[in-house]
Amino acid sequence: MFQTFAATTTPKTGAPRLAALRAAMSKHGVDGFLIPRSDAHMGEYVTQRDQRLAWLTSFTGSAGFCAVTADHAAVFADGRYTIQAAAQVDTNAYEIRNIPNDKLIDWLNNTLPEGAKFAYDPWLHTVSQINGIHTAKRDDITLIEIPNLIDEIWLDQPDAPLDKMVPHDIKYAGRTHCDKLAEIGAELTATNHDYCVLTQPDSIAWLLNTRGTDLGQTPVALCFAIIKSDATAMLFIVPEKVDENLRTHLGKNVSTQDVATLGECLKTLTGTVRVDPKTAPIAIQNILMENNITFATGDDPTVMPKACKNPTEIAGTTAAHIRDGVAMVEFLSHVARLGDVPQTTEIDLVKQLEKCRRDTGALQNISFDTICGSGPNGAIVHYRVNNDTNREIQHGDVLLVDSGGQYLDGTTDITRTIAIGPVSLEAIRANTLVLKGMIAISKLRFPSGLAGRDIDAIARHALWSAGLDFDHGTGHGVGSFLSVHEGPQGISRRANTPFSPGMIVSNEPGYYATNQFGIRIENLIYVKPATQLSGADDREMLEFETLTMAPIDHAMIDLSLLENGDRDWLNTYHAKVLKTLSDRISPDALTWLKTACAPL
Amino acid sequence: MFQTFAATTTPKTGAPRLAALRAAMSKHGVDGFLIPRSDAHMGEYVTQRDQRLAWLTSFTGSAGFCAVTADHAAVFADGRYTIQAAAQVDTNAYEIRNIPNDKLIDWLNNTLPEGAKFAYDPWLHTVSQINGIHTAKRDDITLIEIPNLIDEIWLDQPDAPLDKMVPHDIKYAGRTHCDKLAEIGAELTATNHDYCVLTQPDSIAWLLNTRGTDLGQTPVALCFAIIKSDATAMLFIVPEKVDENLRTHLGKNVSTQDVATLGECLKTLTGTVRVDPKTAPIAIQNILMENNITFATGDDPTVMPKACKNPTEIAGTTAAHIRDGVAMVEFLSHVARLGDVPQTTEIDLVKQLEKCRRDTGALQNISFDTICGSGPNGAIVHYRVNNDTNREIQHGDVLLVDSGGQYLDGTTDITRTIAIGPVSLEAIRANTLVLKGMIAISKLRFPSGLAGRDIDAIARHALWSAGLDFDHGTGHGVGSFLSVHEGPQGISRRANTPFSPGMIVSNEPGYYATNQFGIRIENLIYVKPATQLSGADDREMLEFETLTMAPIDHAMIDLSLLENGDRDWLNTYHAKVLKTLSDRISPDALTWLKTACAPL
Repeated sequence: MFQTFAATTTPKTGAPRLAALRAAMSKHGVDGFLIPRSDAHMGEYVTQRDQRLAWLTSFTGSAGFCAVTADHAAVFADGRYTIQAAAQVDTNAYEIRNIPNDKLIDWLNNTLPEGAKFAYDPWLHTVSQINGIHTAKRDDITLIEIPNLIDEIWLDQPDAPLDKMVPHDIKYAGRTHCDKLAEIGAELTATNHDYCVLTQPDSIAWLLNTRGTDLGQTPVALCFAIIKSDATAMLFIVPEKVDENLRTHLGKNVSTQDVATLGECLKTLTGTVRVDPKTAPIAIQNILMENNITFATGDDPTVMPKACKNPTEIAGTTAAHIRDGVAMVEFLSHVARLGDVPQTTEIDLVKQLEKCRRDTGALQNISFDTICGSGPNGAIVHYRVNNDTNREIQHGDVLLVDSGGQYLDGTTDITRTIAIGPVSLEAIRANTLVLKGMIAISKLRFPSGLAGRDIDAIARHALWSAGLDFDHGTGHGVGSFLSVHEGPQGISRRANTPFSPGMIVSNEPGYYATNQFGIRIENLIYVKPATQLSGADDREMLEFETLTMAPIDHAMIDLSLLENGDRDWLNTYHAKVLKTLSDRISPDALTWLKTACAPL
Repeated sequence: MFQTFAATTTPKTGAPRLAALRAAMSKHGVDGFLIPRSDAHMGEYVTQRDQRLAWLTSFTGSAGFCAVTADHAAVFADGRYTIQAAAQVDTNAYEIRNIPNDKLIDWLNNTLPEGAKFAYDPWLHTVSQINGIHTAKRDDITLIEIPNLIDEIWLDQPDAPLDKMVPHDIKYAGRTHCDKLAEIGAELTATNHDYCVLTQPDSIAWLLNTRGTDLGQTPVALCFAIIKSDATAMLFIVPEKVDENLRTHLGKNVSTQDVATLGECLKTLTGTVRVDPKTAPIAIQNILMENNITFATGDDPTVMPKACKNPTEIAGTTAAHIRDGVAMVEFLSHVARLGDVPQTTEIDLVKQLEKCRRDTGALQNISFDTICGSGPNGAIVHYRVNNDTNREIQHGDVLLVDSGGQYLDGTTDITRTIAIGPVSLEAIRANTLVLKGMIAISKLRFPSGLAGRDIDAIARHALWSAGLDFDHGTGHGVGSFLSVHEGPQGISRRANTPFSPGMIVSNEPGYYATNQFGIRIENLIYVKPATQLSGADDREMLEFETLTMAPIDHAMIDLSLLENGDRDWLNTYHAKVLKTLSDRISPDALTWLKTACAPL
């Protein structure tokens, strides 16, 4: 089993650990300390060793931070997590603050005493984050960099993982890492940069065609790299993670060095070094500045080529989605066979779905903890079932299941919403409006040059017309056997990077009726040049191709709300799902699938 | 007549005037000079006196500039105007450059000799514009501020207009200027600013409830103002423009001062002065800096309250649109009575339409030169007919007419596209898709907080699905007896200010088939809180109310492409137009209107 259901923290530890931290602060002569959720790689997932925020405060959300002074402590969490934070944290010890409304800088300016020294670990904060504090803090406050105080007081802190970094086969990657290094080297040359420091493990994994298991559901090994404009690279990694197999793969153009020597190596660089201030720890910039090494701020150059999947990656993810579709159909037919009174729980279903994915024989891991929310739990957008919240599925429930798999050839992410027996007309109406938005994006054809922000309204138009909406983005980028949340592409108000062919995004509008039900329908889609239409302009246009292969529940569709084009799309989609999966699934599943995919 | 059709410039004057400018440059010891289209107020329209760009180069577009050195001269024009510029300008004397692709800074860096002095008039360029040159120019180039060289060589330069500034009645403005001054004063106080310099005449017109005729179609008087946080103001204006009537209106809280004393007055200010770098001439910032007066950059504080019309202004513009609808229906019925072979020209129709507006007895001016493009001329988005381009309307033409009026109670802007006899199926299809987008915006309900960029796709969705699009924004803001192009609201990729109730915008998708026909359908709409729907979320939503009152040509609609909701909207709109206008129009027009508004 990959997913666990035990509560991993308790509020009880919050106060004593806070006391220990304050003692350490006093010993080091600082008046405050900042504890982020991030590690030095600034990604969404962190290892057990890097769970400093959860260890200190008991808050386990995937984003947030804590600020501590001698007299005050505050956990800052965003709207997804404020209720969870209040439940997990000892609120006698910590106040809960809501970002982005409550700002760290205001809290610091109001809380810190005159002449305070406020400390942080420079490896855990980006240049942009620290600059933000610097420019807005009270003049009398001094920012201090110190070794991490949590590491000093966390006596049983787990070791860093030592699993091997492994080659990612060219048959999945589609391009050699030497070819990619040449592309990135040319990009550095074009901008007159001699080096680029990469700090994000998925950037390095893409560039060097390597993977790992350090972060579990995101298949990367933690590391840093320095890329040179001559198409060579230095990989900085814990030595135990490197074996002969990896060395052979990396070849002569990529040296491996102990991650502990990164700072020393940075000091020796001659030429201009590119650093991405949005993701690089400020410690790296500090080393460059203190040693008078010329550096320039610029984007991580792997982000765009990683986002635009090549034909091999598109073929791989297509195969992965067919395989994942088999698992989903086995799962959905299992749920259907449980009937209107299924006598099962959310945890049972999560385990069953994971079993179906493992039965494919190709699952490397799930791509994130499954969201399985029945009835009112479905309305909690980031719900993760645990032993305390687990709920028996009820007759009349709307059941929302959002899940995905990591396969060597691709990463999947799918949400289906299922009626358990008869559900309310309100739920059916909302589900149909959500489906209309999801179909509108699926069918969309749009001019080249537009970004996700420019098309987000298309997914919401049907809901808006009924006075409804949802409070999350319509879609996020997805990697190729990499992170299930990958930038810069997306479909949301924050997605400003124009779409390019090969980008994979999710298409997942939803609707949430608090304390009643949650609805989300999610397919992965990828961007491709639009097919030529007769009578069209000669302008360049793009469209989406759907990857996800699993039926959408007919029982939750009000046909009277669909336009003909919507119905045509759905029938065509279901016909394709049936045709593609028929030969790959169990007889019981096939019987069910034929009904589930019958034309409307 | 307000509109003229004579070509106002000829390419022949370009070379001799350029020679005169170069002689003046030489006399002043400068190696280059920059000639913008703008005056010191940076608006869309300029007086005859300020037509320096047109006088020098013969280019009459509403945007662009010219840069001149001893050996080179270039007219920079955007995509709307590059063809026009090439036709108007002596291209042996001037090269034509396309903005934004061709950049002034590159041209200067490539063209100016070593150690060159490049000069500009600091009253005609904003802080932002000059800073942009400063940061990117070659180090050896020096920027020099000098009095305008065109004014020195333009011997018969017209005088500045001396028409009176007049009060704008409270029955149209809805709020006293003292009330507005108190609001702006409070805003300045809240940001710790003691003064604000206003440089845009429409900002001052709104704030002081005044109007004028300096710019013809935009009813403002040229002036500057300094607003104080204590809700008083100094108005800087040519003394001849002020009379007793205006003085009585302005009262004791607003002093009037000779515009020639603005610089001296700026030098005496004590406290912090807010300047908007996007619109203020750099001369103003220079005066403040040279005299060590504290200044802060910030938005023109009138922009948002001016954009959000109050109930009196909304009632006024509603009345203005009914009156303008009468004129449009008289005009459209006139065109219909001309039949399928109308034996009339574009200029005839422009004159006829202007006559219909003047017949209302309330027209102050047209709000812009009418765009009347028949057949291929309709495909030129910014087409203005003149005696050279005038075309007889042909049987089978698509006729596009975009026009508007200035009335004391409101500003109008409407486009209708009319079939002259049978038109092509291609035109009917495109017109129907444009109409679908226009209806989709008209019917739209959307969450509060969104900007025009977030809904622009809704207007284009139907066109995109057919592989079509249009290369202009869907809508621009409109003033209240002020500018027909008013910010910050709009519907386009550049419109990032969230909608607020009372904002007026145009809703004008289009389609242009080069050398064949142009289509645009435009209504003005305003933002209001959405009516409550049963079953809706309790989230705050907005919707639009349509102001424009004139039928949309049934002959150009393919009913098979409309959804039921589209047809319902159109029938409801036409019923409202008929009901509202029936009692106000001539018997002939009523006969026509009954047919034009019959339900589909």
